Order: sequence, then C-alpha cells, then structure tokens
Amino acid sequence: MTVCPLEYRYGTAEMRRLFSRENLVTRMVEVELALLQGLASAGLAPEECGSIGGVTVRPSMLDEAERRIGHEVAALAEILAEKLGGCGKYVHLGATSNDIIDTAWALVLRDALSIIGSRLWSLIGALRRLAEEHMDTLMVGRTHGQHALPVTLGFKAANYVYEFSRSIVRLCEARRRVVLGKMSGAVGTMAAWGSAGLLVEAEALARLGLKPHPISTQVAPRDGYAELAAVLAILASQLDRLATEVRELSRPEIGELAEPGSRRRVGSSTMPHKSNPTLSERVSGLARIVRGLAVAGFENLVLWHERDLSNSSAERLLLPHMFMLVDQMLADAARIVEGLEVRAEAMRRNLELSRGAILSEAVMVKLVEKGVPRHEAHRLLRRLALRAEAEGKGFAELVKESPEVSDLLGGELDEILDPSNYLGMYRELVARAFEYAERAAKVCGYSNSSQGSTRTCSYST
Amino acid sequence: MTVCPLEYRYGTAEMRRLFSRENLVTRMVEVELALLQGLASAGLAPEECGSIGGVTVRPSMLDEAERRIGHEVAALAEILAEKLGGCGKYVHLGATSNDIIDTAWALVLRDALSIIGSRLWSLIGALRRLAEEHMDTLMVGRTHGQHALPVTLGFKAANYVYEFSRSIVRLCEARRRVVLGKMSGAVGTMAAWGSAGLLVEAEALARLGLKPHPISTQVAPRDGYAELAAVLAILASQLDRLATEVRELSRPEIGELAEPGSRRRVGSSTMPHKSNPTLSERVSGLARIVRGLAVAGFENLVLWHERDLSNSSAERLLLPHMFMLVDQMLADAARIVEGLEVRAEAMRRNLELSRGAILSEAVMVKLVEKGVPRHEAHRLLRRLALRAEAEGKGFAELVKESPEVSDLLGGELDEILDPSNYLGMYRELVARAFEYAERAAKVCGYSNSSQGSTRTCSYST
Amino acid sequence: MTVCPLEYRYGTAEMRRLFSRENLVTRMVEVELALLQGLASAGLAPEECGSIGGVTVRPSMLDEAERRIGHEVAALAEILAEKLGGCGKYVHLGATSNDIIDTAWALVLRDALSIIGSRLWSLIGALRRLAEEHMDTLMVGRTHGQHALPVTLGFKAANYVYEFSRSIVRLCEARRRVVLGKMSGAVGTMAAWGSAGLLVEAEALARLGLKPHPISTQVAPRDGYAELAAVLAILASQLDRLATEVRELSRPEIGELAEPGSRRRVGSSTMPHKSNPTLSERVSGLARIVRGLAVAGFENLVLWHERDLSNSSAERLLLPHMFMLVDQMLADAARIVEGLEVRAEAMRRNLELSRGAILSEAVMVKLVEKGVPRHEAHRLLRRLALRAEAEGKGFAELVKESPEVSDLLGGELDEILDPSNYLGMYRELVARAFEYAERAAKVCGYSNSSQGSTRTCSYST
Amino acid sequence: MTVCPLEYRYGTAEMRRLFSRENLVTRMVEVELALLQGLASAGLAPEECGSIGGVTVRPSMLDEAERRIGHEVAALAEILAEKLGGCGKYVHLGATSNDIIDTAWALVLRDALSIIGSRLWSLIGALRRLAEEHMDTLMVGRTHGQHALPVTLGFKAANYVYEFSRSIVRLCEARRRVVLGKMSGAVGTMAAWGSAGLLVEAEALARLGLKPHPISTQVAPRDGYAELAAVLAILASQLDRLATEVRELSRPEIGELAEPGSRRRVGSSTMPHKSNPTLSERVSGLARIVRGLAVAGFENLVLWHERDLSNSSAERLLLPHMFMLVDQMLADAARIVEGLEVRAEAMRRNLELSRGAILSEAVMVKLVEKGVPRHEAHRLLRRLALRAEAEGKGFAELVKESPEVSDLLGGELDEILDPSNYLGMYRELVARAFEYAERAAKVCGYSNSSQGSTRTCSYST
Repeated sequence: MTVCPLEYRYGTAEMRRLFSRENLVTRMVEVELALLQGLASAGLAPEECGSIGGVTVRPSMLDEAERRIGHEVAALAEILAEKLGGCGKYVHLGATSNDIIDTAWALVLRDALSIIGSRLWSLIGALRRLAEEHMDTLMVGRTHGQHALPVTLGFKAANYVYEFSRSIVRLCEARRRVVLGKMSGAVGTMAAWGSAGLLVEAEALARLGLKPHPISTQVAPRDGYAELAAVLAILASQLDRLATEVRELSRPEIGELAEPGSRRRVGSSTMPHKSNPTLSERVSGLARIVRGLAVAGFENLVLWHERDLSNSSAERLLLPHMFMLVDQMLADAARIVEGLEVRAEAMRRNLELSRGAILSEAVMVKLVEKGVPRHEAHRLLRRLALRAEAEGKGFAELVKESPEVSDLLGGELDEILDPSNYLGMYRELVARAFEYAERAAKVCGYSNSSQGSTRTCSYST
Repeated sequence: MTVCPLEYRYGTAEMRRLFSRENLVTRMVEVELALLQGLASAGLAPEECGSIGGVTVRPSMLDEAERRIGHEVAALAEILAEKLGGCGKYVHLGATSNDIIDTAWALVLRDALSIIGSRLWSLIGALRRLAEEHMDTLMVGRTHGQHALPVTLGFKAANYVYEFSRSIVRLCEARRRVVLGKMSGAVGTMAAWGSAGLLVEAEALARLGLKPHPISTQVAPRDGYAELAAVLAILASQLDRLATEVRELSRPEIGELAEPGSRRRVGSSTMPHKSNPTLSERVSGLARIVRGLAVAGFENLVLWHERDLSNSSAERLLLPHMFMLVDQMLADAARIVEGLEVRAEAMRRNLELSRGAILSEAVMVKLVEKGVPRHEAHRLLRRLALRAEAEGKGFAELVKESPEVSDLLGGELDEILDPSNYLGMYRELVARAFEYAERAAKVCGYSNSSQGSTRTCSYST
Repeated sequence: MTVCPLEYRYGTAEMRRLFSRENLVTRMVEVELALLQGLASAGLAPEECGSIGGVTVRPSMLDEAERRIGHEVAALAEILAEKLGGCGKYVHLGATSNDIIDTAWALVLRDALSIIGSRLWSLIGALRRLAEEHMDTLMVGRTHGQHALPVTLGFKAANYVYEFSRSIVRLCEARRRVVLGKMSGAVGTMAAWGSAGLLVEAEALARLGLKPHPISTQVAPRDGYAELAAVLAILASQLDRLATEVRELSRPEIGELAEPGSRRRVGSSTMPHKSNPTLSERVSGLARIVRGLAVAGFENLVLWHERDLSNSSAERLLLPHMFMLVDQMLADAARIVEGLEVRAEAMRRNLELSRGAILSEAVMVKLVEKGVPRHEAHRLLRRLALRAEAEGKGFAELVKESPEVSDLLGGELDEILDPSNYLGMYRELVARAFEYAERAAKVCGYSNSSQGSTRTCSYST
Repeated sequence: MTVCPLEYRYGTAEMRRLFSRENLVTRMVEVELALLQGLASAGLAPEECGSIGGVTVRPSMLDEAERRIGHEVAALAEILAEKLGGCGKYVHLGATSNDIIDTAWALVLRDALSIIGSRLWSLIGALRRLAEEHMDTLMVGRTHGQHALPVTLGFKAANYVYEFSRSIVRLCEARRRVVLGKMSGAVGTMAAWGSAGLLVEAEALARLGLKPHPISTQVAPRDGYAELAAVLAILASQLDRLATEVRELSRPEIGELAEPGSRRRVGSSTMPHKSNPTLSERVSGLARIVRGLAVAGFENLVLWHERDLSNSSAERLLLPHMFMLVDQMLADAARIVEGLEVRAEAMRRNLELSRGAILSEAVMVKLVEKGVPRHEAHRLLRRLALRAEAEGKGFAELVKESPEVSDLLGGELDEILDPSNYLGMYRELVARAFEYAERAAKVCGYSNSSQGSTRTCSYST
C-alpha cells in the first residue's frame, strides 16, 4: 500500500535512489565508519579499525532494532557493534546521533545538489538554444496581460536564462553552508574525545570529503536547511513563472506556443478535441507545495538551547519532498523547452492585432525628437489610441491621418511602425544574459559548453 | 525503494489504507458505477447497468493503461468499458474526470474526517479524565514563562478540552463544505445529459450517500479543500501547543510532567542518563509541515476559469500528507495524555518557589477591599516583591513584616497566602468547558460518553 | 513620515477608523468601564461606579504614560484611576490586561466582520445581477486555459455567487468563535473576584453585548484568530480567482471583459495605448500578503502555558492588516463587477474559434445515444479534431463530411453543433446557487434582497 | 488616525526615514534626474539637462496628481516636466515606470541593507564580548529541554556568533542580486533610446552608483526580492531562536539569565511580582510576521510575460514591513545581549541538579577506554541513572558504589565527575567561530574590530 505520490509519480529514479531509506542508511553507515577511522587516527581505537569498509545494513534490520530500542541511531550503533568484531566496541564512541545524521545528510545533499544543479544547467542550455534559434522571431511583449511593445522570443528566453542563472549561483552559495560535516559530540564540544577532538573530526571528515562547521551545538545549524528550502522555493517559483508563460501563450486565442506532445495526449476523458498543457500545469501545481514547505524550513531553525528534536520529523519530510519535487519540475521544464512548438505566424498575427497601437511609444519618441514635449505627445497618442478602439479603426491609419503627427513624421511613419525596427539593444542584452550564465556556471564548476554539464561542482569557500 | 516517511513511519494503518492508491482507485470505480446507475435511472443507459457492483481495478493495471493513454481517468474508463460487457459503452458517459475524482475524494474525506474526529474526541476524553482526576491538583499558572497565579492541573486540562472542542466544531463545519458530490460534467452544466442532468446527479450521489454541490465548474470549488487544510493546520497547532506544554513542564528544573515511557526509551545514543519527551517533540515538528502545507491549500483555489489542472498535482500531495500527519499527531497526543506522569509534589514545590510572591495579587485584592486604591496597592506590593528578590527573603515573610499590609490584613494573611484559597471559580469554569465539549460533540454526532466515541458523524446541514 | 500604505493607500475610511489607535483605545476604555459595572453589580465596587460613561483617553496621553510605566494597560488603568475620582481605585480591579485587550478586540472584530460581511454580500448581489442580466450570454467555458464547452456568463457568475456565499457562512461561523468576551483574570480562574467571578463577567459582558468564552487562560484561545485569518485568506484567494478571471478575459486576444475605467486611466507612463486591468491586478497582489499573514496566525496560537506575550506584537500587525487589505479587495472587486464591460460579440467570436470542435462532446454523446461505444466515439472525434487542426479545416465541416458520423446523425448535426443547445441544466443550477446564497444570508442575518444588505448580523449560536 | 504599528511602535527612526513615503518619492526624483543625465550624455536631451539636481517633490503634491491621472509615475513625470522648464519635455523619455521604481528601490535597499548589516554586526560584537567574558562560565548544555552535558556560556554565545555570521554572508550575497539598477524601458529592450540604450543606462546608473541587471523585462527580476525576504526571514528566525533561549533560561525554575530591565518594568497590570522577558517575547512574535511575509515574496515572482502589476501592491507592503520589523528585532536583540544579566550561581546549581548524571557520558567514555564495549557501558550507566532517579539517590554516589565502575575507574572518578574537565575543545571551537565571523565581516566590508562597525559595505561582485 502506497500513499505518497513521490513513490510512483514524481521525481526521477536517480533522485529517488538518493533519498531512499536504503541510501540514507548506507550513508549513515559510511559516516560511522569514517568516525571509526577518525578515532583510530587519534589513537582512541586500534589502528586496524580505521580502514573498515564495505559494511551494509538493511533498513528492515534497522527497523527491527529501532522498534526494540526506541532510537534509530542507537539501534544502528548496536548493529554495527555486533558486525565489526573487535572494533565493534569503538563504534559511535563519543559521538551523538546527529554527528551521524547531519553528516550523512551532507553527503546526500551534496549529491542531490549536484543533480539539481545539472538539471538546471541543462534547462538553461535549452533556453539558450531557444534564444539563439529565435533571436529574431518577433512577438508581442506583454505587460498586465496587455500588448506593450514588440520583443523577440529569443529576448524573452534570454530573460529566463538570466533568472535561472541567478538560481545557479544561489544554489552554489547555499551549498557552501549545508554541505559541511558535523562531528562534535553531544553538545558540540567534542568532550568525549578529550584533546583529540579536532583530530577525530579532521580525519573522519577528510575520508568523506567534507569540511566541518567551525562550531556547532548538538546539531549543525539549521539556518542552512532553511536557506536551502528557500532557494529551492525560489527556483520552483521561477519554474512556475516559465510554466505560466507556456500555459498562457498556449491559449487558443493566442496560440503562440504549445507544449510538446500536448496534441498526442488525451486531453480530456470527455472532450475529444482537448489539447492541454498538462506538463506546465503540473509544474505550477507542485510549486505551491514547495513554497509551502519552505515555511516549515524557517520555523524549523528555532531550536531550544543546544537543540531539541522537533526539527527531526519535519526534516524527514521536508528534504526528500523538496528535492524530489523540484527534480520533477526541472525535468518537466526541460522537456517543455526542448520540445516547445513555436508558432511564429501566430506571433506575427498577434503583433498586428492592435493595428499599430503596439508601436505608439515608438511614434511618441519620434515626436519628442521633433520637439514635442513628452507628456503632450503621450496625451495625443493616447487620444488616438482611444479613438481607434472606439471607432474600430487601425491606430496606424489614424496616426497617419493625424496632421499633428504626419506633419512632423510624414515619410518616416512606415519605418517607425515596423516592429522589427523597435527592438532596441536586444542582441546586446541577450549577450549580456549569456555572459552572466557563463560566469555563474564557471563560479559553480559547470562546464561552459551548452551541450552538457559536468557533475562536479567545485567551490572555493 | 521508499522515500516518503508516510510509507513506514507516520500515520496509522487505518488512515494509510484510506489514502492508499488502492483505495483511491476503488473509490473511483465506485463512483463510475454510481454514475452508471444514475444514467440507467435517467434512461441514458439500459436498466441492468444500474445495479453493477463488485468490480475491482488494480492500480498496476491502471498505471499501465495511463502510461499508454496519458490520462488517468480516461484510462480507468477504458478498463471499465472492457470489463462491463454490454454496459461498457455507457461507462463515464457525459462525465468529466473530476466528476469521478472529486466525488471519490468526498468519499475518502468522509472516512478520513470520521477517523480524525474520533481520535480528536478520544483525546478530548482523555483530557477530561485528566481534568477530573486532577481537578484540585495545585500547580503554578505561568504567563511569559514566569509564575503568575496558582491554577490546578484540572483547570489547565479543561482549557485544552475547550480549545480542542472548538476544532471538533470546525471540522464538522468544514465537512459540510467538502463531503459533497460533484456530478455535473465538463464545465459544470451537465450538458451531456440533456434535460436528465439533475436526475443523473441525484441518483448517482444517492447511491454514494452524498449531497451535491449546488453548482460547480469542471471541479468542486477548491475553497473547501483550502478550508480543510486550514482547519487541520489549526488543529495541528493546538496539538503543538499541548506538546509544548508537556515538553516545558518535563524540563528537569520544573519536573511536573513526564511523557509516558520517556524513562524506558534510550534517550541518547551517547548520554546514558537522557529521558527525552520525544513523542511531544515529534508532534511539534510535524505541526510545522502541516502549517506549511496549508499555504499551498490557499494558493490552490485560484484556478483559471472553469478550472485549470494546477490543483491536481498539489492535491495528490496535500490531502494524504495533511491527514496522515494529523492522524499521527493525534495518536501521539492521546498516548501522551493517557499515560502522562503527573508529579504533584514537584508542582507543589514550584508553587512555593517564589516564597509567596505568586499570591501578591491575592494580597493586593484584599488591600483594595480594605480601601487602598488599586494602583497604590500594586506599587506597594511590587516594591516588596523586588525587595524580596534583592534581599533573598521570602515575599510572604516581608508582607507579614510590612506594617502597611499587616495592619490591614493581619490575621487573615495566612489564609490569603494559601494558594488553594485563590483559585476563583475554577470548578464552574471547568464545568462550562465540559458542557461546551458535550454540545460540540452532540452537534457533530459524537456520543457524549467520555469512554469512547462513535464513528458516525451525522450533521444537519 | 508615513511608511505603511495602509495609512494612505489601502482600506476604506470606515475600516481604517475601526482599526485606528484612537478606536482601539476607546474600546479599551469602554471595556474598563464595563468591568467597573460588573464589579459594582457584584458589590466589589460602589454602586455608583457602575454607570460611568463618556470617558475618553487620547492615544498621546496613553503613549506618554506607557513610556513612563512600560506597560500599556497598566498605564491606561492609571490614567482612568486618576480620572474617575472615588471610583478610580476600583478601576481594573482583579482584571488582567488581556481581559481588556481581548474583549476590546472582540468589539472591534464585531464591527469589522460586519463591514466585511456587508461588502461581501454586496459583491454577491452584484454577481447575481450580472448572472441575471447575462443568464443566456453565450461564451467559451475554459479548462486548462483551453476551450472546453460553451457556458453562459450568467452561469459563470453564479459559480462565484456560490463560492463567495460559502465564505459568508465561514465568516459567520468564525465570528461565533471570536466575538466573545474574556473577563477571567490573570490565569483565567477569576480568582481576584472570589465567588463573584461569574457575576462580574456576566454583568460586564452584558453591557457590551458579548457572550463569554466558557473558559480561558490569561487570554482568549488564539485558535479563533487563526481561524479568522485563514477564513480571510480563503476569501482573499477567492477574490484573487475572480480578479484573475477578469485579467485573463481582458487580454486583447480574448477581449471578452474589461475592467471599468481601464480605458480612462493612463495605463502606462510610456505606452500611450495601454489599458490595464490594474484594479484586478491589485486584488491579486494583495491576496499574497493576506495568505502570508495567515501563516503567522497559525504559529501564533502555540502559546506557552497560560500564555506568553509572543502573540501580542504579531496580532498588532496581523489583525489590522488582514482586515484593511480584504476590505480594499472587496471594494475593488465590487467596483469591477458592478462596472464590468461585457463584450458579447467577442464571446461569440471566440466560441467559433475552434470551428465547431468545442462541441465535440455534444457529437460524441449523440453518437453514443445511437449505439456507438463511448470510447470509440471519443477516439473517432479526437481523430477528427486533430485532423481539423492539422489540415486547417473546420471541425464542424469534417464532422459533417465523416460518414461514420453523418450516417448516424445526419440532419441533426446543425442543431447538435449549435452551442446554445448544449448548456444542460444551467438555469436550474444558477437557481440552486442563488438559493444557497439566500440560505447563507439568512443564517448569517443578511436581508435576502439583492439590492442591499443590513449591517446587523445576528447569529443563533 | 493611524492603523499600522510601524508608524509609532516598531522600527527605528533611521529605518522609518528610509522607507517613508517622503524618501521613496525623493529617490524616484533622483532616478528621474539620473535618467535625464543619461539622456543628455547620449545626446537625447540637451547637455544642460544632465546636471540638474536639488529638485524636491512633496508626497502630497504627487498624491494630488495621481488622483487626477490615475498613475503614480506618470503623475511624477508630469510634475517634473512642469518644474524643469526647457528640460521638462525630456523627463522620463523612453523610460517605463519600473525603471524609476525598481532603481529607486535599489537605492533604498542599499541603505536599508547597510543599516541591517550594521545592526547585525553590532549584535555579533555583543555576542563575542559575552562569549569572551563568559568563556569559562559553566552551565548545563541542554538537548530536548533535558540536561545533556556541561557547556560554558561563552561556548553557547559563540554558536550564535557563527549562526549570525552566516546571515551576514547571506545578506551580502543577496545584496549583489538586488542592489542593481534597472533602466531598460517598457519591455526591457531599451527600444525608445535606439542604439543609445546601453549608454543611457550606463550614464544614469553611474550617477547613482549602481550596476545594471544584465537583462530585464519591464521589471528587475523578482527572485531578488524573494531571496531578500527569505534571507530576512531566516535572520528573523535566528533572532527568534536567541530570544527563545533567553525566555527559557529566564524561567524562575531555571533562573540563569534575565533580560535587562525586566525587573524595573511593570510586568503585569494585576500581579505586582511579575518580571517578564517582554523584549524577547516581542522578538519571537515579530518573527512570525516576517516568516509569513516571506511566503508572499515567493509567490510574487511568478509574473506574467514581461510582467504584470500584481507584484506592485504586495511589494509596497512587503519591503517596508520586513525591514522595519527585522530592524526592530535586531535593536531589541542587541539591547538584550548587551544588558543580559548572567547568574553564574544558578547555572552552577542547575549543573548539580542531576547529581552527577549529566556526566554519565564522561564515565562511559572512560569505561570504554578501560576496555568495556561502548554499548555495554551505555547500558550499565543507563541502569544506574534510572536507579538514581527511582531511589532518589545521586548518580555520582551510585556510580562510586557500583563495583563495575569503581573497580575500573576508582581514584579518577572525582576528576571525571567534575564538569569543568568535560568541555572538550570548547576554546578552539570558539576561536573557529570568531574566525568565521571575521572572514564574513571582511568579505562583506565590515571592520574587523568588535567594538563597532562601519556603515560602508563594499562588495566585490
């Protein structure tokens, strides 16, 4: 019996493996063995206990022991103690549960952030390719849902490149505050290891490839997880914004974009004609859950004294859910962008819908150049725009008929009213967005080629 | 591989069964058959199609079909169409997916609310028994974490009885807005059934024991789920408040309460002496997730036009998680209250900690009775309280020595300074709380005996 | 210097007055005088102290005293003690600050809920008038942003009538749990009044027209405020849904609705042609703040023991902000609906956009009536819909050409493809929505005429 | 009439000035003049229009014009156009409202972040001084609210130093993504300035000391504000954690800390003896509002296409409220830490409360050193701890009597049971925390002296 859609519906297999109970237990075992190595290096355990590896503990075995003992990590320590023969008695020596749990989470999060980072970098790559391909594909720029000025699809895509690249940097920065080991005992003083504490910590974490928190209580400080949750919620909201873009531009009245496959899927169990942007809608829906969970992350850092346990149950849910959901959303978004159907002719048609009014600013600017005060030009053109709508006439037509305008702009009007002449510095701005993405990738250890991404993410702290 | 702790850690088996994919599919089949009955009653399907029952569909079969078709309910309709022979072609006729999904949810939520209601009523019962047993057990009343005035444990428990009874009523009221059928077709007009729409709806829902929403779009209005989520978040926060009470009063410096079993459990993997209120801490932790998810519920009702799909993925997570977690929290809370260790002697000791200052108000009131203006009495006693602390003397002692006080109150002072004489109308107020609980239970269909609770929850709309 | 837009931008004057510091202080004075009457009735103060009225305290005077004393209510008590001559010394006797504050809030909230209720009932009235006027105005029903089936604008409006009426009921129900007096002393036992406690409470609250909480700690239980915040957040989200409807249907490509005045306002400082649905956008924006504040409401009820002070600062912000913002949103929504520009011709045009595909379900239903199995009919029509799109042909045309369809439906096809014939039971469903609204209004004490609303809101508990 | 407590109760005068409507208008004027300079530099306005300064606009004048025109920035542009004589007609030329608004916000946020940063750095300084002064002041380390192991107050304070220093870095990093100019016109293409766009932008922003966003839509990307809100919510939650520490340790049963002035303030209007940690409670209360508002920040970034207006109203509330409240909380926290009453004798007394059990781990570790397997030692000592509690005996006493222990540890036991011998590497860890703080300060441009902080905050992007 399965109740949670994470088990069968959302999240990739890769990410599911990372957050599986199997992997969490494996990571905890790994940390216990690293600690044993730390103890051995510090002379607190026999030398031969330092090089033990290849130990596995099945979750079911742990569950059985936990039921008996009433404490998960104590149960694990007991199982390991029995498994490791002569070294058994040094297992977990001087450590507290969260030395194991928090350090195991750091290992899981390191991998999970690597996956998220890669997927995000892939999505940015897809957006860049879209931007390049449609650098000059003219379309309506919309504000308030209304027609504003012309843009190109490439320019639009490049804005997303920039926005998502900011998330790349945020993830990098958050990573430096959560992918850290915690090996400092019950209240963080390392008391059980006497003067060898720093050595135990250094050796244990070196084996795991982690740096330590400079200081800690019983637990690593929870502001790190809160930050991670917030950064993922921001990323989820950015994906929601992209999905909303696709959903809106897929409306039949607009018809500029279509989600890949929306035509092949059954859209409705009752309306045979329906073609729905369901992938994008899923992204928007899941974003709400991620935003909600971020709130729990904030509350979760208000722990009593050297810690209380209230963060524990919340984190067992918070961390897998946020990562699995954002993982799914990124996979969906990449699929959407990579297979996006672009209908340039609909874009063009919509651009002409206002019969020139979308270029009213262009006319205004030219009038000002000819010496008309800006606010007078604004009033004049607003009047013409209202008249065009009231009389059902074209704005372009009225502008040409208007003596105030045509006397000044006469022959230039056709050029002024051509949307492809009113795109400003879009090429340079797209280039700046791409440069930002490259810088972000470099700082965060991604290769700067758009066709793929490396998994390693090396930061200089 | 399991990633979600709902699968193995949180939520009772009873609730897990309800929200299992198996049960959801079963419920959807049930609704499809009820619809078939509605169609038959209205003459839109042969009469014999109206009495079909006992059909089961395995989730794996549905998954397989969904992968092929790309739409869950369309896949289910196809499976049923094949299973039902001559009636197959009438399956799902004129219905939209959410006729099936929303009505199936109504059935699941009816059962889930019944479980939550029962557990909550049991918890209230346990609190009432605690209140009765400790009606006169004196303890410190605390405000700002500081000693305020004496109360009794029974009085404290009765406040929780009142607070939780308010949640009983809220759940009842929310139930009336979510346990309703939705059988109105693709945009809510019942168009496919022509003039027979109201009849199809009436017959189908009658079989399921549901009343209909008076009107709907493609879906039942989502403010109902948002309300449910909010009401559960309030209940979760009340449970958090109760858990916080236990956690605080279990501090060794206070020592007035102890969670059951906290002594038998291993408290720490490294500190052998630890006895931790881990059940209560779990309640506090899970409350954060429930609060966070409620936010998603609010956002989720802002659907476009006759609906968009964004609510769907969010609800697949929202509903099971909220119910499973609150279910676990209620089970934990009941266990805590039922097995609560009460240490009356520690309560008494703490009551004496301020050496009389906790009764400063009692003295003040008597001084006013003797004619001293209230604010002068307040100033005088505040001065004595500060002096007591500064000089390390007992407040009672100083009060007796103070001529301003003892001249007026002399012989009565011992009686005034006895905390059991300063409890006001606590017995009457406890009785009022109990009466409120009875009224709440009656309105919501619970039996008014404290030893148990019925499952049926009959409301008059 | 003003920092908060509530001071000059959002919220009506009526609501601002209610939540002004002046009014809060006035209400606290009123409660202190009511308490004095309670004390007099119970013989704890001279009889003549029971009938004092007409006392005012200026906020600036209170601020000055608070700065000196460091406690707001203590300062108020001192000011009153000085003002009331011989009765002065009985002021606030035996009460705690929150007897005054919570009871004053109950008075403010009673008025505030009355305003919100009236505005909401007015909005429902406007939606009903819209529904009546456009009962038969045909338009596209949209799901996923895509065309689904025809509806009428009246039917759409009636769905909002139902949804908002549910909020009417929720507000009513929440009101019964928050508009209650709290007069029970420092820890809720009424200790200072000895055996006269219940009498003091009854007399004081009778003067204010309030019933008491059956039991309380130092404060009224905060689940009530949390519920109120949640109910307002749900209402805000419903308003957001309505505003989103208007914003979407105002897109120039759709053009079915326009916000009143959107044409007269300057839409853009730079684009003279812009007509933006800024009122609706404001509603959507403010909804986010209201949703966010609801979270604070949940957290705020987790108070320690007989209370801690942490709720106080949060509530000073939470309550005025939520009410002022929802007040503004309701005023905006009413203005939008009352002045809504409806463009029936655009609705008609969009209905024809799919060249008949929007009626594919209607054709399917008829085919099933003729004996075609439902899922075969679904497949056939889906194929035709895809072909229509691929070949740029009309769906209606293809359907007529298709022998599988025309052989069966031949002469009926024109009628089947007429959207006004495929509206199902819309009139009956609209009537049911109106009935629900009437019932809701009756339960909550609103007059059932649509042209206005009464201010009194009488509930039977 | 004032409704919002930001006007008179929360936030420092310094911060209030920044977010006052006066300052916002001043900043917008400044940006308009900078734009004029950009236009002049690019030859789009006469040279003399580039050096205009010293223009002021009163909010009341703006309000009046906005009421007439219906658009705030259009109104401002018109006022300036009238004021600036011959240059008037170039005002706002080619710009969109959010060029002005977003860039003005960047200026305000630059100052606001500087204040927040300074206050936070001061708080860290106060915590460092506390840590230094009480480096060796022994106290109980608590987990789950229960006694765990000894720590020192200095060690505890150093943990807060580390945690808050992480916020210093987060603020720095967020700053780089929000303190950026936006000068790119109606849809971000700079179209109105033709090929001079980049020059206009560069010159205008140089005057203001800002770098530009590499690309933008009509607005600067809102993920930046969302991040800022989240970072402030994390900081607020950290302050809540600190405040909770003080509130808990001020409980009379614990009595280790007291908030400054808690003794002098009137604690209660009715209980003369009360001394309440009201400053700390206020911090906890306000944190909830800040956390709630952060949710609105996430939602707020999901804007349609090149933007919709829904972010505008939300931000008018979000930004001032978050900054004003965190500002107040930081001021409160600094006051608390700087004036904190530390009661070392109570700390010592509590340390002895468990009569040695708090050192059970220390004994366990020594037993393991002598060859006892860890989990056997754990079981033995747990048994002794339970017996001690059951029999009301001292744990230390029982340990000494136990032959299993005393045979092995005999003469060392007194030393082992001395808490000051079981503090591990606390001094080194405190030093590491301080080093982290120094590094954070250096990166973010704070002076590294603990006695004060500079206001300038120079980042290398």
